[in-house]
Amino acid sequence: MEIPIELDHGSRQSLQGQIFEQFRRLILGGRLKPGTPVPASRALAEQLGASRNTVLLVYDRLIAEGYLQAREAIGTYVSFDLPETCLAASRPVATPSPDQVETSGCLAIPFLGRAQAVVSARRLAFDFWLGRPDPHSFPIKTWRRLINKALATAGARLTEYRDPGGLPELREAIAEHLGAARGISVSPEQVIITAGSQEGLNLVARLFVRDGTLVATENPCYQGAAFLFESYCAKLVPVPVNEAGLNVEQLPKDGVMLVYVTPSHQYPMGFTLSLERRLKLIDWARRCGAYIVEDDYDSDFRYRGSPLTALMGLDEHGCVMYLGTFSKSIGAGLRLGYLVVPKALAQAARTVKALLDNGHPWLDQAVMGEFIRSGCYANHLRRIRHLYSERRDCLVEELRRHFGDVRLSGLESGMHLAWHLPEHYPSASELQNLALRQGVGIYSLGSGAAYDYGGCDYSGRTVVLGFSSLDEYQIRAGIQRIADALAGLPASPALPVATY
Amino acid sequence: MEIPIELDHGSRQSLQGQIFEQFRRLILGGRLKPGTPVPASRALAEQLGASRNTVLLVYDRLIAEGYLQAREAIGTYVSFDLPETCLAASRPVATPSPDQVETSGCLAIPFLGRAQAVVSARRLAFDFWLGRPDPHSFPIKTWRRLINKALATAGARLTEYRDPGGLPELREAIAEHLGAARGISVSPEQVIITAGSQEGLNLVARLFVRDGTLVATENPCYQGAAFLFESYCAKLVPVPVNEAGLNVEQLPKDGVMLVYVTPSHQYPMGFTLSLERRLKLIDWARRCGAYIVEDDYDSDFRYRGSPLTALMGLDEHGCVMYLGTFSKSIGAGLRLGYLVVPKALAQAARTVKALLDNGHPWLDQAVMGEFIRSGCYANHLRRIRHLYSERRDCLVEELRRHFGDVRLSGLESGMHLAWHLPEHYPSASELQNLALRQGVGIYSLGSGAAYDYGGCDYSGRTVVLGFSSLDEYQIRAGIQRIADALAGLPASPALPVATY
Repeated sequence: MEIPIELDHGSRQSLQGQIFEQFRRLILGGRLKPGTPVPASRALAEQLGASRNTVLLVYDRLIAEGYLQAREAIGTYVSFDLPETCLAASRPVATPSPDQVETSGCLAIPFLGRAQAVVSARRLAFDFWLGRPDPHSFPIKTWRRLINKALATAGARLTEYRDPGGLPELREAIAEHLGAARGISVSPEQVIITAGSQEGLNLVARLFVRDGTLVATENPCYQGAAFLFESYCAKLVPVPVNEAGLNVEQLPKDGVMLVYVTPSHQYPMGFTLSLERRLKLIDWARRCGAYIVEDDYDSDFRYRGSPLTALMGLDEHGCVMYLGTFSKSIGAGLRLGYLVVPKALAQAARTVKALLDNGHPWLDQAVMGEFIRSGCYANHLRRIRHLYSERRDCLVEELRRHFGDVRLSGLESGMHLAWHLPEHYPSASELQNLALRQGVGIYSLGSGAAYDYGGCDYSGRTVVLGFSSLDEYQIRAGIQRIADALAGLPASPALPVATY
Repeated sequence: MEIPIELDHGSRQSLQGQIFEQFRRLILGGRLKPGTPVPASRALAEQLGASRNTVLLVYDRLIAEGYLQAREAIGTYVSFDLPETCLAASRPVATPSPDQVETSGCLAIPFLGRAQAVVSARRLAFDFWLGRPDPHSFPIKTWRRLINKALATAGARLTEYRDPGGLPELREAIAEHLGAARGISVSPEQVIITAGSQEGLNLVARLFVRDGTLVATENPCYQGAAFLFESYCAKLVPVPVNEAGLNVEQLPKDGVMLVYVTPSHQYPMGFTLSLERRLKLIDWARRCGAYIVEDDYDSDFRYRGSPLTALMGLDEHGCVMYLGTFSKSIGAGLRLGYLVVPKALAQAARTVKALLDNGHPWLDQAVMGEFIRSGCYANHLRRIRHLYSERRDCLVEELRRHFGDVRLSGLESGMHLAWHLPEHYPSASELQNLALRQGVGIYSLGSGAAYDYGGCDYSGRTVVLGFSSLDEYQIRAGIQRIADALAGLPASPALPVATY
């Protein structure tokens, strides 16, 4: 059987990535039906002019992600129980007419997409899951007070539609906060209130992405961004990261419409984009007419040195959009964030938001606006920044105590760090599984809400650990258990390696 | 100058509609630059093989909507001040390379869209604006009590991400409510909590609409739906309505992916889709593999007879999606609604919602769930249904008292009615302007959040009046002022005409 896959040898995406993506789409689109055996790796390699090893790696990944199943004696075939939702979304159609051959029998929906993992899959006693604020730090008393105050003067604001861009008081408070905290000088009209940064990303995607639009992202990058752009049929362009963040030199010279970056604390690696690269990135965007999406998801937590000015604060050409969220600094259950756009895009972004959902709930906005204006937000940030820095110190200390001079990144800020495992350790997924058996959640990149295009230096040997939602007892006990699990292995526990 | 417009004489869209849409896109896409003179109507008519009158009507509409400007002695040209947002969203690009000729000088974003009008443009003393609940009926005391109760036991729910589909308790409460109120039997997993029905529509669009997807709607229809599908580059197919609702016989025989309908109280005309047509519509969808989007925006208010079972309650083939909202029954400021999908689509809809915004705020959902479960919602509905029926009676009485046996539609349910003006009255927009000068807001279809494809029987001679947010004094005074305004005209005030 010939599989209709076409490789673009000029593409920046690896052959492996291209084969994987096209295979996945053939399966999800129903062109390869459940139960269909796949060609032998040698045959497919020959057909595509790729190495057999590449094809084997793709098959491994398709099996790992649940698209294919392999059975001794039977061989490898398309799974009956697919990991996504699209094939399920077909229903019988009666009496197909002759010109309906394509869809006869079932009507597939055109949507192809997968959801990012933002919720930890299991309830574990010691779960270093990522991006979760401390559950006990929610300012519940203040919140209750501000809600009751807002309700007392609500008037018609609970029954009426308002500006879809958001409550003016909140937009103003955010604009002011951004000036002081991130060096960004914007007017309130440029701030669009969103349901978390995911909705902000959606506004961006709706503004810019059509079938085949080139969107560059860090590799590895945040899953919620990659999956979203993918669901809009963007063509994703992976760009490697290293200790100084996105490797700007490796961006394509043209053709890219958007580049998505996490400069404060690269997700998932925790790197900070250097000032030199920030300026280069803006220059690149200016030269080739691209827009930068700056996701500043956890910049509120800076533990060492002073924060670098946000890209949007450095930009003089109106080519940066800035995503902020209160999900990390206050609580994800609020579903509150914002998108800041250049002046020229403000009206269009407001239109997209109107079409999306006519704006955000009034009460939540009123309370948040007052929370910031009254200074409670600044106090809250100070308090939890201190708490998280203690937790980070505790985690680093425990890792060093058990595993020696561990190589870590992402310590300067944020809510998680990345642990680079030395060569003689089990791989990231093996360690994750070992820990899981002890009731401890630590995460390889792919299972830690990151998207790994493959071919990235960090894939196999990095685990990520969130520390913001665990108290020091849980951190100590969790790391102890990992050490116990590793001690059961022949490998020696540690070797001195340079720390970033 | 040859304008690149291509007409499809086999299309169900009128030639006028086709020319208008293509012209609009040429302008918004920047192909026709501000200041460009348009061809003489005779020349364009010749080029297109259309009548000169058709072209003149298109030019009139483009001028009315602000795309073109006409100046004595200069002629008609593309406006410098366009009504939409896309051209504004361009920014200079430095040093364009030779292969960037297309975008050199400015980079336009691909988004083409316009926002629906959900907020009345002016603050008027007597504003019969549509779809607005009574501002004094918001159950504020109960709401405050339920919020404080929910906050007392919030635990980690304010800080954590949860199921993007929504809070299980709320989904269950809605599923139960729909069974009793609308004859719809669904499981909670089929209910996705959304930010009002506009977000529900977005989920539908993301699931089904790609460039060129055929989406049928009523003509005239709700602007928020038409503009949304249009922004996803759907090809809209208008289908006429009459007193029995959507004229199912006039649906295309195939090729349509979605049909958007408002069966309980057609927006804007107020007609109820007859049971016979409901069954025919479902049968049509089953036969040609289309899906029906049932927008039941104000079905909570039924004043005469018992409500017809919702399309989703009649559907045995899984071809109906149902949009519900609390914006009309409680308050638009809550931004809370839901989309109910067939079982086969539940997983995909949940994925789209996750990608869209990771789910709805927890507190709002918890409060609404308890509001329904505790019976407060049923009581609230009973109370405001009574209130609105009194207001409707008052409005009808006043209209009859001043204008005789007026021809009205949409009396059986909902929050607004349509007034069909007799031949000798001023046109709908003239009457709207007359009223406006008296401080009274009444609305022609196009200015009343409706979308009129043109060619609809009701366009010029229907005004719509919302009555739910005005008290009886305001209603009486408002209608009195319209009568005063009309009395200043030579036309006689009324003629006896049959009431629907």
